[in-house]
Amino acid sequence: MKLQNVSQKLISSHLISGEMNPGSEIGLKIDQVLLQDATGTLVMLELEAFNLNKIKPEVAVQYVDHNLLQTDYKNMDDHLFLQSAAARFGYWFSRSGNGISHVVHMERFGRPGKTLLGSDSHTPAGGGIGMLAIGTGGLDVAMASAGEPYFVKMPKVMGIKLIGKLPDWVSAKDIILEMLRRYDVTGGRGYILEYYGPGLKSLSAWDRHVIANMGTETGATTSVFPSDEITHEFLRQEGREDEWIKLEADEGATYDLTIEIDLATLEPLIALPGSPGNVVPVREVSGLKIQQVVIGSSANPGLRDFWIASQIVKGQVVSPDVSLDINPSSRQVLENLTEMGALGPLIAAGARLHQSGCMGCIGMGQAPATNTISIRTMPRNFPGRSGTLDDQVYLCSPETAIAAAITGKITDPRDLESVMNFRYPKWAAPTQIKINKKLLIAPSEISPELVKGPNIKTLPDFEELPDELEIPILLKMGDDISTDGILKAGADVLPLRSNIPELSKYAYYAIDQSFYERAIQNQKTHTGFCIIAGENYAQGSSREHAALSPRYLGQKFAIAKSYARIGWQNLINFGIIPFEFKNTSDWDKLEQDDVLRIEGLRIAVKNRDSVTAFVVGKNIKIPLTYNISERQVEHILKGGVINFVKQK
Amino acid sequence: MKLQNVSQKLISSHLISGEMNPGSEIGLKIDQVLLQDATGTLVMLELEAFNLNKIKPEVAVQYVDHNLLQTDYKNMDDHLFLQSAAARFGYWFSRSGNGISHVVHMERFGRPGKTLLGSDSHTPAGGGIGMLAIGTGGLDVAMASAGEPYFVKMPKVMGIKLIGKLPDWVSAKDIILEMLRRYDVTGGRGYILEYYGPGLKSLSAWDRHVIANMGTETGATTSVFPSDEITHEFLRQEGREDEWIKLEADEGATYDLTIEIDLATLEPLIALPGSPGNVVPVREVSGLKIQQVVIGSSANPGLRDFWIASQIVKGQVVSPDVSLDINPSSRQVLENLTEMGALGPLIAAGARLHQSGCMGCIGMGQAPATNTISIRTMPRNFPGRSGTLDDQVYLCSPETAIAAAITGKITDPRDLESVMNFRYPKWAAPTQIKINKKLLIAPSEISPELVKGPNIKTLPDFEELPDELEIPILLKMGDDISTDGILKAGADVLPLRSNIPELSKYAYYAIDQSFYERAIQNQKTHTGFCIIAGENYAQGSSREHAALSPRYLGQKFAIAKSYARIGWQNLINFGIIPFEFKNTSDWDKLEQDDVLRIEGLRIAVKNRDSVTAFVVGKNIKIPLTYNISERQVEHILKGGVINFVKQK
Repeated sequence: MKLQNVSQKLISSHLISGEMNPGSEIGLKIDQVLLQDATGTLVMLELEAFNLNKIKPEVAVQYVDHNLLQTDYKNMDDHLFLQSAAARFGYWFSRSGNGISHVVHMERFGRPGKTLLGSDSHTPAGGGIGMLAIGTGGLDVAMASAGEPYFVKMPKVMGIKLIGKLPDWVSAKDIILEMLRRYDVTGGRGYILEYYGPGLKSLSAWDRHVIANMGTETGATTSVFPSDEITHEFLRQEGREDEWIKLEADEGATYDLTIEIDLATLEPLIALPGSPGNVVPVREVSGLKIQQVVIGSSANPGLRDFWIASQIVKGQVVSPDVSLDINPSSRQVLENLTEMGALGPLIAAGARLHQSGCMGCIGMGQAPATNTISIRTMPRNFPGRSGTLDDQVYLCSPETAIAAAITGKITDPRDLESVMNFRYPKWAAPTQIKINKKLLIAPSEISPELVKGPNIKTLPDFEELPDELEIPILLKMGDDISTDGILKAGADVLPLRSNIPELSKYAYYAIDQSFYERAIQNQKTHTGFCIIAGENYAQGSSREHAALSPRYLGQKFAIAKSYARIGWQNLINFGIIPFEFKNTSDWDKLEQDDVLRIEGLRIAVKNRDSVTAFVVGKNIKIPLTYNISERQVEHILKGGVINFVKQK
Repeated sequence: MKLQNVSQKLISSHLISGEMNPGSEIGLKIDQVLLQDATGTLVMLELEAFNLNKIKPEVAVQYVDHNLLQTDYKNMDDHLFLQSAAARFGYWFSRSGNGISHVVHMERFGRPGKTLLGSDSHTPAGGGIGMLAIGTGGLDVAMASAGEPYFVKMPKVMGIKLIGKLPDWVSAKDIILEMLRRYDVTGGRGYILEYYGPGLKSLSAWDRHVIANMGTETGATTSVFPSDEITHEFLRQEGREDEWIKLEADEGATYDLTIEIDLATLEPLIALPGSPGNVVPVREVSGLKIQQVVIGSSANPGLRDFWIASQIVKGQVVSPDVSLDINPSSRQVLENLTEMGALGPLIAAGARLHQSGCMGCIGMGQAPATNTISIRTMPRNFPGRSGTLDDQVYLCSPETAIAAAITGKITDPRDLESVMNFRYPKWAAPTQIKINKKLLIAPSEISPELVKGPNIKTLPDFEELPDELEIPILLKMGDDISTDGILKAGADVLPLRSNIPELSKYAYYAIDQSFYERAIQNQKTHTGFCIIAGENYAQGSSREHAALSPRYLGQKFAIAKSYARIGWQNLINFGIIPFEFKNTSDWDKLEQDDVLRIEGLRIAVKNRDSVTAFVVGKNIKIPLTYNISERQVEHILKGGVINFVKQK
């Protein structure tokens, strides 16, 4: 029998269709699904459109962690809708304030050896305890909830051998920042990042969560850790020791690519504004004056991450020029921090303690001031994601963040010891933590009606793919456009996630604030529009709204040099063809407002043939390819998966 | 010498001008001032317009407690502006997250025997420790900051004799709700509410704060308690024993009106939606299904108020249909709650713990869902104030609120004992509390530049009063219109408080969403507009924006049957004449869009003569009065106090 690494074991034990050849489509059995509120409302509306009765996975949980601010009726209406929909379809419901999906899921539901599909791009955090955990668009999770397999291109596996032990003042976040320093936001595409080696034994389950969570930023399909004695101890702590299985790579198993990180050589790292891939050593930017520090998010969620900040800041006061914001990652973390006496020092130092949830990580409050620097332990800093359009957000470890909160400047936390005489606090996990399941509502037998507030709108209908198109390029974009650019996050826009017509007013808003107006004008003159982009189009979050809203406004296809995995899948799911330039240099030949003509589109898609776009009035031909599976042909032709399912 | 009650002692010891005859204008020396952020930015812009160097009061503090959500750059820009302005002019600065102004002020600065003027209508909370604490518009506080006296009509004094002792499950909030049940939102107008009698000795300083704070809702000028041994003990606890003085009514002193409340006869009370004056016993509405409970605000700020909720909910879980939101009133309260072990039970029960500040009390988040009931320990429930326009907000004690959180229905908390076998927890204040002054930045000698983000706009200029006006009634309103109606609170509008042109788009929004558009249209045809209203116009908050924004859009005068004190003062401060109907029945004769003509206005104002408004084309004459002091004549003629001061 072939020797397998952990990723291969997880995949082969869930393989329903396809061959495990990198790049070819495989179908996977999904054991667990998770939804969060900002993507979950669409999933529930999709299940309603499918007329589904009961969902199928072993475990399915609807979390409420994104839209917590309730600046008007919409967010709480969504929470009530989701609670009713969870009861209607058979999901667990994790109440608002119970914490971030990935964190609570790992505390209460995650199991080594299982597959987890989540409508949140940081779902791979589950890989920290030996799951195959993948983030994807809501429609895929809706299909998995209905018992369908999840289809994805078989990834390659990158083996990352960890050796050595982290120095003081360096922690798990610096490991994933090192990966981003090496691979940037595209280097992980097409890979599972699998960690192994002797360095693992000094990394707790929560450290692994940090690394697996933010592995998403490399573009990887997911990240995977073995399930070992550390995983065992984690499950024992959570009162779920019986759910542990050992899951390790076979001795001698290989990887498609192998790299090594010597933990002992790492130093505190930081991602500069604009992209989680802009990583440099903290010391290179130390001394910059800052105005805000935010600690929390699923990228630094463990008790340790808050405890370490608490112990460092103990007896100090936050710099007078800094707002220190603490977002407990879950109710359980908050309760245990309080129990350990680690909350008091944070409050005494002047921290602003916020409710448990994503908060500023998704721009739900905590927007920084104009022209000021914000230091965050979060996974992302795409432009404008903080809620401030011209923001300057840096990403780092809790150690680096709290050092900045104390000094008021970006500070290498090692300077706290060498210059300011702080000792690095030594973490020891409590032997017993407080566990409380009361805030999780179990799926009941009752199937009540859906409770829909006035902002919750049934999904719009979409037409089938036309055979001919003559439509303008309404926006020309460069590389690494994120879903935050395509469809803004933030407290102003997130409450519209259940209302596609209203939400669509913010399509491409962070890139071009005139886009919506131009799209409406375009509806008077053309049957649609397209956009063009560079490499890694639609990276970042899993929000399918970034396909659905442009589609609602008339987008028929995209042309990019390449796509991020989830963004590409979402486009297909909503019937938008994700064309690629056959010759990437053709990007230069096209200009915004050029009108493209494509003929014979339906027959081409049926045969998965490439097509040619003619630039009207310019005598330019652009050959286009696209790489869809046979299964996806009908999705595109019908105008999206929802039409496809409804007609079945 | 004449025997004096506490109010008279406070006034006579600070009297600078005028006679202590009820209704006539007196000028008071102001010892302390407080600002909060939502009104403070205008105050700082006013001080800038005055070209002030250093402020004069003994104690002056800028708090940041309202605009804490930071949904975009504006709120944090305001915080930085206020911090720079505090340093520029000489205020203490209480950092964001340090707590609600009234609460922190009482903890750290309030002193018996002193006067306190605050740009927040709940400033009277300071009366709980024997201060003369008055809430007013920002311009008055700006003047007091510059060392000017505060001018107000000499109030009558209502003596409220408290006898007996509260039963279990009934607390201080029920006392002020009983006052509102008796006097509604206008019964206190023209009065100071002074509490005395044997019932006082069972009321802590924080209980008195509750009563004095929400006394504002009766329309009273302020509320006053003596400074006694309980006050002494409070100051000892806060480490300020040396600041105590004894301040009690002379034996035999009298009041303009005397009433009595037997505490032993009180039962749990609740204010129904729409007005804090709609008070009924809880049992009359028990059983109504609820969706939200919010505990916090300056109307229930003490450690006890959170502790009691914590002890009642201990070991329970919040009803699955309810969101329980906890807003610690100050950082100190949160730290001590944590220290006492009283935070854990709240978190374990599922409470959503929010940052320290006003939060949902001012509609800064926590907006309830559509068509659902919200139960709050806050002081106000004016329509739409919660952030949800058609809200259903009930006001009550922490005991009643937490009972509803447990049962999911409005519940007389006594039923917890009689039906559900809970024991009423007996509160004993900790002998020593944690005190921490680090989050207060003392006024320094440095006077740096003001830091103004792009949303912080210099105040608009206003013209002098014209001699003739022919302008339409752009809005006709009924009784008890609150400043929340005139200028919306809520997370969408509050961030615009430093930008009058933008803010003005929300003038009268909660009453008529077409108002702004109509006002803009009106600018093309007329030189301004007026509004008419019924009794108690402009009750509620101290926000001078409710005068300034209508003025910016062209409002020249108001005609009402009567005014709330602060609203009336704010109109004059911004050069809007607060006319009253000589015959209140004339309100019925006027219709929206009627055009009123007034002639000889300047000479009439100069002589404080009444005027007549002619309804154009209708042969109707409306005689109008107005009751301004000689001092205020020039304010009106010049077009407001800012013009007046600038020209001096």
